[in-house]
Amino acid sequence: MPIVQKHNLLNFTQKVFQSFGLNADDAFICADNLVMADLRGIPSHGVARLQRYVDGIRDGVILPHTRPTIVKETPVSAVIDGQAGLGQLVGHFSTRLAIAKAKQAAVGIVTVRNSNHYGIAGYYSMMILKENMLGISMTNSAPLVVPTFSREMVIGTNPISLAAPAKNRQPFVLDMATSVIPRGKLEVYNREEKKMPEGWTVDENGQVTTDPGRVLNNLIKRLGGGILPLGGEGELFSGYKGYGLAVLVDILCGVLSGGAYADLVDRTIEGKKVPAEVGHFFLALDIASFINPDTFTAKMDDLLNRIQNSAKAVNQNHIYIHGEKEFTFMEKYEKQGIPLQEKVYKNLQTIGQQCQVDFIL
Amino acid sequence: MPIVQKHNLLNFTQKVFQSFGLNADDAFICADNLVMADLRGIPSHGVARLQRYVDGIRDGVILPHTRPTIVKETPVSAVIDGQAGLGQLVGHFSTRLAIAKAKQAAVGIVTVRNSNHYGIAGYYSMMILKENMLGISMTNSAPLVVPTFSREMVIGTNPISLAAPAKNRQPFVLDMATSVIPRGKLEVYNREEKKMPEGWTVDENGQVTTDPGRVLNNLIKRLGGGILPLGGEGELFSGYKGYGLAVLVDILCGVLSGGAYADLVDRTIEGKKVPAEVGHFFLALDIASFINPDTFTAKMDDLLNRIQNSAKAVNQNHIYIHGEKEFTFMEKYEKQGIPLQEKVYKNLQTIGQQCQVDFIL
Repeated sequence: MPIVQKHNLLNFTQKVFQSFGLNADDAFICADNLVMADLRGIPSHGVARLQRYVDGIRDGVILPHTRPTIVKETPVSAVIDGQAGLGQLVGHFSTRLAIAKAKQAAVGIVTVRNSNHYGIAGYYSMMILKENMLGISMTNSAPLVVPTFSREMVIGTNPISLAAPAKNRQPFVLDMATSVIPRGKLEVYNREEKKMPEGWTVDENGQVTTDPGRVLNNLIKRLGGGILPLGGEGELFSGYKGYGLAVLVDILCGVLSGGAYADLVDRTIEGKKVPAEVGHFFLALDIASFINPDTFTAKMDDLLNRIQNSAKAVNQNHIYIHGEKEFTFMEKYEKQGIPLQEKVYKNLQTIGQQCQVDFIL
Repeated sequence: MPIVQKHNLLNFTQKVFQSFGLNADDAFICADNLVMADLRGIPSHGVARLQRYVDGIRDGVILPHTRPTIVKETPVSAVIDGQAGLGQLVGHFSTRLAIAKAKQAAVGIVTVRNSNHYGIAGYYSMMILKENMLGISMTNSAPLVVPTFSREMVIGTNPISLAAPAKNRQPFVLDMATSVIPRGKLEVYNREEKKMPEGWTVDENGQVTTDPGRVLNNLIKRLGGGILPLGGEGELFSGYKGYGLAVLVDILCGVLSGGAYADLVDRTIEGKKVPAEVGHFFLALDIASFINPDTFTAKMDDLLNRIQNSAKAVNQNHIYIHGEKEFTFMEKYEKQGIPLQEKVYKNLQTIGQQCQVDFIL
C-alpha cells in the first residue's frame, strides 16, 4: 500500500480544487475535509471520493463558484441556500455562522438546503469543538436505507455527529450513520466475496439477504432492497429506532431548511444527474453560557473514565470512547504518513493528469 | 383486564398526588403525564409506575414541594436545578421555559440537573408540538445499559424524543430509548418464561445471554451484565452507535447541566436510596423563524407519505410512522377506556387506601 505524507496529500488535493478556479483558501477547506477523513482512518470519505467531486463539477451538478446565501436569519438561527455549491464550502460557511451566533448569543442553529455531499459529519462538529464549544452536525444523503417493513430505499444513511471537549482526555466525537452499516462495507464484502451477517441488508423483496453482490446490483439499478437502519430488520432489534433517527435528521436538514429530503436527495432523473440538493444541520452551543467550562470538561473526563474503566467483557481488554480510534489513527498517520489503497493512489494520479496538477505524493 | 375511563384515571391519579399536598394544577400535570403513557399504549411508563412516585415521596428522595430554580439563563438558554422535585413538574416547568424562549428568540434550550424520573420523553416534546413548534426532549436514567465491550451497566436507557408537526397527517413523534430494548421487555419475557433473542442482553461476563431471569437477577443485585445498546453486542451490528447516542444524551442532560451522569444517576448507596439526580434536556424551535410553517407542515406530509407509500416488504402491509401506533391507541382508549393489567389495577386500589383517596375507576 502506498504511504503518502499528509502535507503532500493536502497540497495535491488543494491544487486539484484550485484547477477549477477555486481560490487557495476555499480549495484548502475542501482538501482538508477529505484528508481529515483519511487521517482519521475513514478512507471511504477521504481522497477516494475526490473523483466524485471532480465529476460533479464537470457534470455541472456541483457549482464551485456559487456562494451560499442567507435565506433567513435571527441572532441565533439561520437558513442557508447552498446554491448547489461544494458541500465542504457550504458546510464550512454555515458552521462558521453557527459558531459566530453562539459566541454572541449562547446558541447558533443553522439549517441548510441545496448543498452537496459535505464529507464527514465530524469535520463540522470538530470545527465547533476547536472553539471549545459543543457542536452538532448532521446531513441527509442519497436514499440507500430501507425503512422498517419497506423494501424501497427512501431514506439516507443520514449521519449524526456530536463533539464535546474534555479536560485531560481526548474530546468525545460521535460520528455515526443512522444505518446499521455504510455502503462502503457492502462493497468490501462484495470485493472479498464474503457473505454478510443477517441483519445488514434486505433484497428486492424486503427480506434479509447475506449476498452483497445482489444488494449492490439492486442498489445501483434501484430494483428494491438496500441497507437496513441501525437496529436491523423488522422490530425485534428495534430497527424502527435507526429508521426514526434517519427521519429526525431529514426533518432538521431537509424539511426545516425548506429543502429536499427522503428520496428527493441526490437522485438521477431519467438516468441524468441533477443537483443533489443535500441538506445539513449545525448546532453550536457556547458551554460557558450554561456552566463553567472547567466544570464541563472535568465532568466529561469523569464520564468517559467511568465508562472506559468499567469492567471489560471476557476476552475484551479495551472499551473505546467515540473518536478515540480516530485520534489514534490521526496521531500515527501524521507521523508515519497515510496509507492509500493502490486503486485510490492510481486514481489520484489520473486526476492529476486530468486537472494538470503535478502528482507529488 | 379491567377497563378504566381516562377521566376517572386522571382524576384518581391527580387526587393521589394531591394527597401529598400538591395543588390541583401540579397534581394534574403529574397525573396527565402518567395517564398519557397509558393512553398512548406505553403502560410501562403509565400508572403502573404510580407506586414508584408514591414511594419516592415517602422515602424522601422525591421532594414534592420544592420548586425548580434557574441557575443560569440567557434569552435562549437556561440551566435548571430541579431541587429533587417531581420529574414531571421539573420537566413541565423547564419545557414551558424553553417554549417561552423560543417564542421570543426562535430557539429555547434548557438543560436540567437534580430532577427525578420525568415519565415518557415524548410528553415534553409534544408540549412543544402543541405550540406548533419543533420539540426535542431527552433524559438520562438509571444505569441499565452495558457499553460495547464492557460488562457493567454504566449508562442509562437514555431516551430521545423529537416531535414535529405535519399538515393533514398526524405529527411525527419519535420517542425511543437508545438501548435495544427497555427493561420492561426483560420482565415480560421473564414472566412468560421465554428465551430472549440473542442480541438484547449480556450476562455477568459481558457475553450474550437469552435468559431473562439471569439478567434480571444480575441487574437487581448489580452483579454485572445488563441491557445492550441499540445495535446489540460488539461491533458487528454497530452497537457502539446506540452506546454513543446514550453518551450524547448524558452529555446534554448530565454534563451540560452540571449534574449527574452515567452510573451516578438514580443509584443506591449502601442499600439506601439517595436522590436520583436525573438530568433532562429540552429544545424548542420556532419553525416560523426558519421557514413558513405551512411549507414546513406540507413538506412533513410529503416526507411521511413518501416513506409510508413506499413498496412494502413481502408479508407486510403497513409501514409505520413514529407516533402513529400511539395516536391509534390514544383514539381508541379515549373512546373505549384504557385497559389496565389486573396487577396494576389492584395496586392502584392499594395506593388509594394508603393515600385515603376514593377508588372510583
